[in-house]
Amino acid sequence: MREFELLGHVYEASQSLGESIIIPPGDDMAMLELDTPRLLAAVDQLVDGVHVQLATTPIEAVGRKAVTRCLSDVAAMAALPVATLVAVVLPVDFDEPTTKTLFDAMRETAEQYSCPLIGGDIAFHKKKTGPFTCSVTALATPRAGRVLQRSGAHVGDSVYVTGTLGGSVKPDGSGRHLAFEPRIDEALELLDRLGERVHSMIDLSDGLGRDAGHIAEQSDVCIEIWAEDIPVTPGCDWRSGLGDGEDYELCFTAVGNVPDMLGQVPVTRIGQVVEVARHGDDRPEGRVWVRVDGDWQRVDTFGWEHGTK
Amino acid sequence: MREFELLGHVYEASQSLGESIIIPPGDDMAMLELDTPRLLAAVDQLVDGVHVQLATTPIEAVGRKAVTRCLSDVAAMAALPVATLVAVVLPVDFDEPTTKTLFDAMRETAEQYSCPLIGGDIAFHKKKTGPFTCSVTALATPRAGRVLQRSGAHVGDSVYVTGTLGGSVKPDGSGRHLAFEPRIDEALELLDRLGERVHSMIDLSDGLGRDAGHIAEQSDVCIEIWAEDIPVTPGCDWRSGLGDGEDYELCFTAVGNVPDMLGQVPVTRIGQVVEVARHGDDRPEGRVWVRVDGDWQRVDTFGWEHGTK
Repeated sequence: MREFELLGHVYEASQSLGESIIIPPGDDMAMLELDTPRLLAAVDQLVDGVHVQLATTPIEAVGRKAVTRCLSDVAAMAALPVATLVAVVLPVDFDEPTTKTLFDAMRETAEQYSCPLIGGDIAFHKKKTGPFTCSVTALATPRAGRVLQRSGAHVGDSVYVTGTLGGSVKPDGSGRHLAFEPRIDEALELLDRLGERVHSMIDLSDGLGRDAGHIAEQSDVCIEIWAEDIPVTPGCDWRSGLGDGEDYELCFTAVGNVPDMLGQVPVTRIGQVVEVARHGDDRPEGRVWVRVDGDWQRVDTFGWEHGTK
Repeated sequence: MREFELLGHVYEASQSLGESIIIPPGDDMAMLELDTPRLLAAVDQLVDGVHVQLATTPIEAVGRKAVTRCLSDVAAMAALPVATLVAVVLPVDFDEPTTKTLFDAMRETAEQYSCPLIGGDIAFHKKKTGPFTCSVTALATPRAGRVLQRSGAHVGDSVYVTGTLGGSVKPDGSGRHLAFEPRIDEALELLDRLGERVHSMIDLSDGLGRDAGHIAEQSDVCIEIWAEDIPVTPGCDWRSGLGDGEDYELCFTAVGNVPDMLGQVPVTRIGQVVEVARHGDDRPEGRVWVRVDGDWQRVDTFGWEHGTK
């Protein structure tokens, strides 16, 4: 299998790359015409054995997750996806039909969210033991100039999450982490409906405890979560909801009325933003606390720590 | 070693990310203010055992090459680099000092070319045998609206290359492929000096034969190269110059006077663009031909074929 043929197959299969693409993939770089000179960018990865188990996962689901994981970052900023670039390193024994199926799944997923695949690189491992790795770069633009950052939370905000949390990765490797919908539409609807009243947002990839910790850290506040209010997936307890990770739901802070639903997705109030001093005096390390049966427990260390797991 | 700490180290060490960065790395996405809504993007990879040999290569050189390889694509379009995003998968036994040295080298290289690192992802392999892989996405903007594509060559153009070709990768893995300068300044100078008279360009990564083939294919022309005129590296013959690859010099087609030098880099005329029919009648498969001692030989199959080597 040859890289040029394979990339040719991907690009030819693209239904419509859209008017915004001035130089399509196939040159040294692709060129886009954006609606605005403001550009958002992020990169994310899938590695066999770490984020996905190729031996037990349909290759279509692998390709889909590679793209949706990165699009969840676009949702977290309440931005509009524009384009994606993909780089994969394939095991020696990856055959051509599997590779085509993988790339077709990535292309179709990217197009489904209006962010066509505009660049790609394919390499093959030299050694038989080299595992599948895939990086996806997402490009996006702010809508109406504003995006939501982690650093915007204010004391007095309520804390909300979309959907249900916990149990996304089943013991056999299957589960919602392979089939979730990035909450792009919901994030844009939130920005539309709340305007300046929504202050900060993150997507839940590492786990609610740790991700709420990123908001708290970057906003220099503390966050209190009420265990009984966490909308857990059936069969999960509050610990799973706080720590399992890979939910790809949104967590945001806002003031005033917040709708119960964004599109078809429920929204739940789970806590509040408080001053650092409230918990900081006697437990200076903590930023996020959960109240369980009247007791407080530090939870910003709950969840997935990159590079240690 | 933790991803957040490591990325924090990288971003904190950034001397000046520049005024164009509205949201610095550390959120779900970074945000840039571009000078123009036209954006170029490409992704490239380095894989241990394929593009680089970690066992025998200083880690600083690995980090540098990861970035410069991708910047060579920016040069190939005669574009201005804007920012880079990096995703790495590290072997289990990669220690923290080595990882910091790697990222420092990538950051410093990116800053040297005015395209700061605005996003990163770090993962560790689960299995002991998983090799180092690294993908770099480069973002760029066109200067004064125009970029050079592979598809612009006209019959009657002369064909030029910068620098010398061949022998970039020595048998022990060292060589110029670890230390080359992406020809960004030279490409911009070329566009300035020749204006509309320069018609197409590519950077020489796969080898002159194959890369000239990309120009020929995408421009629907044929290219004739004169073996005795190829500026080969001392110790190399014309076959090395055509086929070794990893030169990261520029190959372009133009009409009229072309300077002998771009900056400090020599420019050499090596051939011409001709009609497809000239060679196509009896050898319909070929697009690039080299004349050696009066005989013609097809060479667009010379060089590095991705996915087969």
